[in-house]
Amino acid sequence: MIKAGIVGGTGYSGKELLRLLSFHSGVEVLYVSSRDKDKPVIDDYPFLPKKYSNLRYKDVDKKYMENLDVIFLATPSDTSHKIVKDIYDGNKVIIDISADFRLENNDYKRWYKFDHFIPELLDKAVYCIPEINRTDIKKDVKIIANPGCYPTSVLIPLIPVLEKVDPETIIIDSKSGVSGAGKKVAEDYLFCEVNESLKAYSIGRKHRHIPEIERYIKLWTGKNKKIVFTPHLIPINRGIISTIYLTGISETDYKIACEYVYEKYRDELFIKIVEPQIKNVIYTNHCHFNLYYDGISTMIIVSVIDNLIKGASGQAIQNMNILFGFDEKEGLC
Amino acid sequence: MIKAGIVGGTGYSGKELLRLLSFHSGVEVLYVSSRDKDKPVIDDYPFLPKKYSNLRYKDVDKKYMENLDVIFLATPSDTSHKIVKDIYDGNKVIIDISADFRLENNDYKRWYKFDHFIPELLDKAVYCIPEINRTDIKKDVKIIANPGCYPTSVLIPLIPVLEKVDPETIIIDSKSGVSGAGKKVAEDYLFCEVNESLKAYSIGRKHRHIPEIERYIKLWTGKNKKIVFTPHLIPINRGIISTIYLTGISETDYKIACEYVYEKYRDELFIKIVEPQIKNVIYTNHCHFNLYYDGISTMIIVSVIDNLIKGASGQAIQNMNILFGFDEKEGLC
Amino acid sequence: MIKAGIVGGTGYSGKELLRLLSFHSGVEVLYVSSRDKDKPVIDDYPFLPKKYSNLRYKDVDKKYMENLDVIFLATPSDTSHKIVKDIYDGNKVIIDISADFRLENNDYKRWYKFDHFIPELLDKAVYCIPEINRTDIKKDVKIIANPGCYPTSVLIPLIPVLEKVDPETIIIDSKSGVSGAGKKVAEDYLFCEVNESLKAYSIGRKHRHIPEIERYIKLWTGKNKKIVFTPHLIPINRGIISTIYLTGISETDYKIACEYVYEKYRDELFIKIVEPQIKNVIYTNHCHFNLYYDGISTMIIVSVIDNLIKGASGQAIQNMNILFGFDEKEGLC
Amino acid sequence: MIKAGIVGGTGYSGKELLRLLSFHSGVEVLYVSSRDKDKPVIDDYPFLPKKYSNLRYKDVDKKYMENLDVIFLATPSDTSHKIVKDIYDGNKVIIDISADFRLENNDYKRWYKFDHFIPELLDKAVYCIPEINRTDIKKDVKIIANPGCYPTSVLIPLIPVLEKVDPETIIIDSKSGVSGAGKKVAEDYLFCEVNESLKAYSIGRKHRHIPEIERYIKLWTGKNKKIVFTPHLIPINRGIISTIYLTGISETDYKIACEYVYEKYRDELFIKIVEPQIKNVIYTNHCHFNLYYDGISTMIIVSVIDNLIKGASGQAIQNMNILFGFDEKEGLC
Repeated sequence: MIKAGIVGGTGYSGKELLRLLSFHSGVEVLYVSSRDKDKPVIDDYPFLPKKYSNLRYKDVDKKYMENLDVIFLATPSDTSHKIVKDIYDGNKVIIDISADFRLENNDYKRWYKFDHFIPELLDKAVYCIPEINRTDIKKDVKIIANPGCYPTSVLIPLIPVLEKVDPETIIIDSKSGVSGAGKKVAEDYLFCEVNESLKAYSIGRKHRHIPEIERYIKLWTGKNKKIVFTPHLIPINRGIISTIYLTGISETDYKIACEYVYEKYRDELFIKIVEPQIKNVIYTNHCHFNLYYDGISTMIIVSVIDNLIKGASGQAIQNMNILFGFDEKEGLC
Repeated sequence: MIKAGIVGGTGYSGKELLRLLSFHSGVEVLYVSSRDKDKPVIDDYPFLPKKYSNLRYKDVDKKYMENLDVIFLATPSDTSHKIVKDIYDGNKVIIDISADFRLENNDYKRWYKFDHFIPELLDKAVYCIPEINRTDIKKDVKIIANPGCYPTSVLIPLIPVLEKVDPETIIIDSKSGVSGAGKKVAEDYLFCEVNESLKAYSIGRKHRHIPEIERYIKLWTGKNKKIVFTPHLIPINRGIISTIYLTGISETDYKIACEYVYEKYRDELFIKIVEPQIKNVIYTNHCHFNLYYDGISTMIIVSVIDNLIKGASGQAIQNMNILFGFDEKEGLC
Repeated sequence: MIKAGIVGGTGYSGKELLRLLSFHSGVEVLYVSSRDKDKPVIDDYPFLPKKYSNLRYKDVDKKYMENLDVIFLATPSDTSHKIVKDIYDGNKVIIDISADFRLENNDYKRWYKFDHFIPELLDKAVYCIPEINRTDIKKDVKIIANPGCYPTSVLIPLIPVLEKVDPETIIIDSKSGVSGAGKKVAEDYLFCEVNESLKAYSIGRKHRHIPEIERYIKLWTGKNKKIVFTPHLIPINRGIISTIYLTGISETDYKIACEYVYEKYRDELFIKIVEPQIKNVIYTNHCHFNLYYDGISTMIIVSVIDNLIKGASGQAIQNMNILFGFDEKEGLC
Repeated sequence: MIKAGIVGGTGYSGKELLRLLSFHSGVEVLYVSSRDKDKPVIDDYPFLPKKYSNLRYKDVDKKYMENLDVIFLATPSDTSHKIVKDIYDGNKVIIDISADFRLENNDYKRWYKFDHFIPELLDKAVYCIPEINRTDIKKDVKIIANPGCYPTSVLIPLIPVLEKVDPETIIIDSKSGVSGAGKKVAEDYLFCEVNESLKAYSIGRKHRHIPEIERYIKLWTGKNKKIVFTPHLIPINRGIISTIYLTGISETDYKIACEYVYEKYRDELFIKIVEPQIKNVIYTNHCHFNLYYDGISTMIIVSVIDNLIKGASGQAIQNMNILFGFDEKEGLC
């Protein structure tokens, strides 16, 4: 049994991590942080098995994390890097669910408006979508930068496609369930403001997942591409659907890409090339997608994931499984 | 008081027509058809004012429509044209909410898979989005082809923009509430199949609103454009949001288009250029939209309407108001 | 045209008041208060007709209300009575949507935990559900205590029933859409906390609508009854359904009550005795209910209203219509 | 590994069974019936692990079930008993999720309007809510009558309470998610008919779960009670909340009952006495409930379960686990 801790146990990702880890045969969660110090964790999460009855929230304090094997940071951006500065010791594994280790130093100034506390660790962090680059998780990796929810939904189908085609423009129209915004207590996320409505947000070149998607397109395919990205807020709890338009594609190239993608993902446990519907992936670590052609010159990709699982906590566990030598799908479905 | 009839009173558009017309000061509804012959209409629609207590469904039979001034066809495609063949007499006004009079004869074979019964009337029908071409409704018009829901959400912002810019590609990513599919009793529209999910459908060059949008872009701007169009099914009752991407646009052209569009719609009662959110337009005849730029070369338009009102029954009443000389917003809000 | 003002224009009831009054032929809204002083009201409520473009929020200050004919207080409990103390002058009409004038002085201490600022006005306020006691609105009434949402849904069917039967116990199981809680920015009302869930709240003798229901049962039927009342929070925007159980009722008494109720409400415009479903009353001022019997000794009443309209703003307008001599249904549907 | 089959694999309970069994370490599903003979099961249920890629639907035919150890009947009422007549051989275990083995012979005529095909097996079937009567599952049991969803939510808290108190009346107001109705393709269950609405149904002494609840109250507590039961349809996918009113209870008796219930369920894995909210039990086999008092004479119980899991397929697996000697919570969470 490895010993795990979660910093930020009361947000939606932290909650989902705790839920999933409680089913994992090789992990025990010994530490969960929250402002509600000393409160039994199970009071907030009554779905937890009774074996967690004695677990109580603690402060974010280094001393509680010393004997842990793995620490999940389910903290907001601009928080994780400060905690890592404090607790990083080259021994324990840190899996950061925030964006704080996904980008290059400059990106934090430009897109996130903060100065990174430990830029020297950025190169040591491994950003990993296992189905694309699981071999990057060598045994000595100590920081995993867990991919963002929108980027995961986009990159899984897009990376292999871009290895075969070179589109003129890449337009990504994404729609996310409300948990994607985190548990923000703000008027915009009240039930009556979201339910029976729909809106686009961060329209234009604004959303912070743009540099993340562009960076890994470049790193993984060598292609320097600017994307157009529009996220939408949808009245569902969980799930993302990304509709991706690649213009200037010939039918031949479309078919070559399809064949390549089918081959590449044939044996992946969590990827299926089927008609994508959010209802088929929620509460799973799956990504379902499919590739379409408009008969003229546009290729269309539609991709779905559960933003809290494959887009956050599930993929974090998948990455942990790889690093610690567990079966990659342990604790996941 | 003009005398009105509704063929197809039990679908969602027919129901909405009845609801809206029951508030119209200049119209009385004397005829509603349904298979449930003789059943009081109010039994299905208990929200109706008590003055409708004696109205009962009747067959679809010419004899009931003879003395009416206006007949709304809230019937499916491939039904309206058959009814029109039967009842058209050059006197009464027919407002068809289906697609049967929106296109050219050939389009029906290709996109709708039927032979039009009275192709000679296609030229006489006026397709009208009042804010764009209300002057086409001359006094002698007898058939109004009421625009489709997706096309209305797209064409209102897009037509004036295309008068000023010439995009390389036009990509339209639309999301519709479930009533847009009509009251189809099929597994795909069951609550548990739609709720907490999301899917794209008719992906590629498949949806029947494609020829409608392309036809009126050409007719109204002179530009021969192929669009890419992907509709999505969203778990809300009513409302459409269309996110439109125009590629290859300079910032200067974007600004010129904005200025032109603001000017054009300044005095329109039902159009507002504000942050578009579905919750602000449902149960209204409004279209809200806004224009954005990505800072590189793509212009983004986001537009929302209520698919049952501005996208169907409300616009039908607006067109009726123009034709019969009522205040254009009578019975609408 | 009478001149109206709304104190508390940014909550859900205030918003609905503004929306409904904007369609009322005899009212112009000249004053809306909010903390966002000077902001155009239409920025928050883009559904408003353009004639409201120049209306801007103002402070809650007596000077803005001096020339108004009617002031709606869409303020929380324990706020309205303070405002009334400040603005009451025996001339203008005040319609209070909060609970501050519905009860007896002692009730405020016990149930609402505050001391009433002007208990001497409590007797002058008229609590009115028009279908029950519209004749209480005499011309000289200056304060109307608008009934609460749950009490409205309960009292409309229950009062005439209790005139004919004498149940052993009255158990009321109510379910409300989320807008019933007002626009509270709190974790409990976040989309992801409410959606796909359901809970009872204020279980036991706790909810503040209990004394309101008991008071008007006594006042209107002479019967001194204790009720059991359990409200539930339901993931819909608007609408209340109340399921009421009366035990110890004979079948004969049940039938007598039915006959009496049918007769009493036969000509009411906003009341229908039909199968009650929330979807049929939202966006209307209607109350739909029906009476059932279990064949043994329990009578069951199911009643639905739109909590924001018949349960708040619509009924407030209906009361205003009566007091000012408008057609009772003007501006309502 | 025991070999399992599912008759009725395409309804909501069958789907959930398949999903849960696919995670069970001791079971392999070798047979799933559906009208879509030969179609790969995974096509309908893409969430299934890839090991199920070769499983195809088959007819309902005895020959496919001969070598199975356990057969789950996820079939409608009035179907299961016919299948059991055909396949029952005293060897294999049959777990019937329908109502066909829950009641006495006469009840089927009266409440279900059919003549039971094999009434002689009714006595051999064991109706089991494990937390109440798990010891009734002896090794030689061959038919398990899996409890209904509403009865499970009611009986878990009510049975121990009734061992201690004797209420005058028992009123049960239940609210169920839409999957509780099964996958019925009917207008009443269309998204737009259910969403943003709410209704009571089977009001009065009508719902078929009444005799089931009354029978097991009598069998398990010796008390002959008539209940009042009103179910409501709620716009959520899954989950039931039952609000139960017991009248004529003293505060002392209430406290005695509480103490007894807390003690009885202290060590149950799937039962928690906490604030009941549907969101905390969906996708789990848990029942959460709590007991309240109104301070006068009414005890109120609120109870929640996931109707598809604890109310159907999860409890079926729990019963299977007991019978086959697996850990009772294997495959469940």
